[in-house]
Amino acid sequence: MTTNTQINLERVKQDLYDLGRFGYNPEDQGIYRQGFSEEDMKARQWLMEKMQALDLQVRMDGAGNVCARYGEPGQKTLLIGSHLDSVPAGGMFDGVLGVIAGLEVIRVIQENNIPLQHAIEVIGTSEEEGRFGGMLGAQALTGALKLDWLERAKDSTGVMLRDAMAKCQLPYHLAMEAARDPEDLVGFMELHIEQGPVLEQTNNTIGVVEGISGVFKWLIKFIGKADHAGTAPMNLRSDAFMGVADFAHEISRIIDEEGTEKTRLTIGSLQLKPGFAHTVPGEVDFTLVGRDMSEEVMHNIADACRKVCSSIARRHKLMFEYEQMSWLAPKPCTPEIVELLEKHSKALGYKTLVMPSGAGHDSQFFTDITPTGLIFIPSVGGVSHAPDEWSHWHDVEKGCNVLLNSTLELIGKPA
Amino acid sequence: MTTNTQINLERVKQDLYDLGRFGYNPEDQGIYRQGFSEEDMKARQWLMEKMQALDLQVRMDGAGNVCARYGEPGQKTLLIGSHLDSVPAGGMFDGVLGVIAGLEVIRVIQENNIPLQHAIEVIGTSEEEGRFGGMLGAQALTGALKLDWLERAKDSTGVMLRDAMAKCQLPYHLAMEAARDPEDLVGFMELHIEQGPVLEQTNNTIGVVEGISGVFKWLIKFIGKADHAGTAPMNLRSDAFMGVADFAHEISRIIDEEGTEKTRLTIGSLQLKPGFAHTVPGEVDFTLVGRDMSEEVMHNIADACRKVCSSIARRHKLMFEYEQMSWLAPKPCTPEIVELLEKHSKALGYKTLVMPSGAGHDSQFFTDITPTGLIFIPSVGGVSHAPDEWSHWHDVEKGCNVLLNSTLELIGKPA
Repeated sequence: MTTNTQINLERVKQDLYDLGRFGYNPEDQGIYRQGFSEEDMKARQWLMEKMQALDLQVRMDGAGNVCARYGEPGQKTLLIGSHLDSVPAGGMFDGVLGVIAGLEVIRVIQENNIPLQHAIEVIGTSEEEGRFGGMLGAQALTGALKLDWLERAKDSTGVMLRDAMAKCQLPYHLAMEAARDPEDLVGFMELHIEQGPVLEQTNNTIGVVEGISGVFKWLIKFIGKADHAGTAPMNLRSDAFMGVADFAHEISRIIDEEGTEKTRLTIGSLQLKPGFAHTVPGEVDFTLVGRDMSEEVMHNIADACRKVCSSIARRHKLMFEYEQMSWLAPKPCTPEIVELLEKHSKALGYKTLVMPSGAGHDSQFFTDITPTGLIFIPSVGGVSHAPDEWSHWHDVEKGCNVLLNSTLELIGKPA
Repeated sequence: MTTNTQINLERVKQDLYDLGRFGYNPEDQGIYRQGFSEEDMKARQWLMEKMQALDLQVRMDGAGNVCARYGEPGQKTLLIGSHLDSVPAGGMFDGVLGVIAGLEVIRVIQENNIPLQHAIEVIGTSEEEGRFGGMLGAQALTGALKLDWLERAKDSTGVMLRDAMAKCQLPYHLAMEAARDPEDLVGFMELHIEQGPVLEQTNNTIGVVEGISGVFKWLIKFIGKADHAGTAPMNLRSDAFMGVADFAHEISRIIDEEGTEKTRLTIGSLQLKPGFAHTVPGEVDFTLVGRDMSEEVMHNIADACRKVCSSIARRHKLMFEYEQMSWLAPKPCTPEIVELLEKHSKALGYKTLVMPSGAGHDSQFFTDITPTGLIFIPSVGGVSHAPDEWSHWHDVEKGCNVLLNSTLELIGKPA
């Protein structure tokens, strides 16, 4: 059922600009609204007042998530939301778009008196950007939090999570109480900017996310022999850098042979030792981050990487060591929701691409407990986590309309 | 004329062990005798006393070079020497071997009353290891010093050269007065450890150096676009690291096509920016150091590197920039001296290799003003500039004998 109901872009725009003032730094035009910072809490306060003005049942849960429910007690609930916190020097769309879109859906339903079968709850989640190394709000809601982690977690400057929460009048152990009973839920829907170049480059307006890619991170070492760059002939060297250069060259072959068009392999960080211009590198330490939507493909790629690193090490007289720092399985979105979102997007006349998400989102935790859908709109130039993050207002409008119409089919009362 | 005269290894050994006490650190077994340090000056004092005991004309010149002359006033002089200073945590052969070998040559000549046509002067040069960025002693002796450099030079901790010299009772401007008149010189001879693996790996005992390789140093940048390693598909990236990986792959081809077996090309230092595991590198900055014995080959190699970097940049959608930090021409040793050294080494029955020196030595400055010869003996494992630098005593003996016999042919009175 695609209706003619439309969201009101002006209201969405005003809310996004209003929220964008919290943590705004005029010097670099970036937004600094890191999880459990003063600015983050001010934004939550502002949003709760906004929600109260709509007569919703508003509260902040023990994890700092801002929740506003529209519906009768006892009804099952569709959650719509995303996060309110930002990275340092972030942009004005990342996260907040999905919260304001949810609020706008409720406003449209309210003013049109659209009858629903279930309740809707808008959630502005807390600490998604990983200041403390997790996605605290979504983990709390989906029962994925561990108490001992809450006790130990700290940010990169050494601030303990529990101290940061205490400063916000949030006793950390109450975060455990934020967990929702999956039996009470209809699903979770999130609208987010793509934060990548694919929609723009392929001329699509709406991305329907089929799932969040799995990801593994390795630390790899090639160890050779440091030598004087003048006295060591080329054929007598064990140059560790040549190992990683050879490996970088194999990446496209590995993806061709073992991967898919959704595979990503990245060498993002690298240190040469000793790292002097006149010394043949005796050691190189680097990271390899691999992603795909299929865990089997991830395994095949990891195997191929291990194999080629071993053979490169033999060829260059190097030692090869690696350590797996993390392995996160892919998180597929719910196929029925993917289908629903794609149907409405196309019915509204928007060019639509079903695609993976290479970045992590709140949605990935909800896939474990309830039907989950994630909608992307284009990021101009693929830029995000930067002050010049932007999405065109007409794309914002279209994204909100897909969310609205899919929501109405999912929980609206059949005519 | 190859004589049967031999050096006395026990004396040489004792002198090297005695000198090795100055700056010795029992914790890492390294020698810390950096130029113009207290330990460096103590070693010079010890050596001057040793020289005085042989009735030589001994002095320290304005650059801190220790000089001991054996001969009549007005005679032309053959200089024999090397440096007395060490790198931090260096070994007990680097430099001092060539000084003690010169002293031993004089001792043998004295005790055998061998008649000479010219004087001999043994020199323990100052600050060859570049604490202040040059080879001060050799530059002073060969008239290659600049007064304004003496005024400005400082070490990596910020100590001014002129202050370090003042502490040693050496007014820095007097270093200019150390310059020798080339008309007064017969030549310069240096015995040194190889500091590389070639002699050992090729089973040779004596290396006769045909010249010190020329060397250029570039700073190269590839600039692409930093992207989220999850959201940026492989084919939409401008990954700067892929630029340097491709370039590393071309190095062996460039040497095959444009270089010689004496060519060295080394990527020794490299930074990825921003350098995060989950971010596609937007920039890579790295050093390229190239060496060869022919300046024409150096030019051809540099051209090939520039060309291939440009084409790699186009292929990967990168910008390519480079800056030439230095270009030092090759310094050939004197062909007649090379021939003389090779002849005596072979006549003594030693396996002999004519080879370039990839590392810099005092000799390189003397090539500009006087006939110059440089002899290498093997470094165990190619190791130098480290506490476990070692050369076998039988190789030390052979190196000294080549120096002695070549010296006797060069300046001995024909029978």
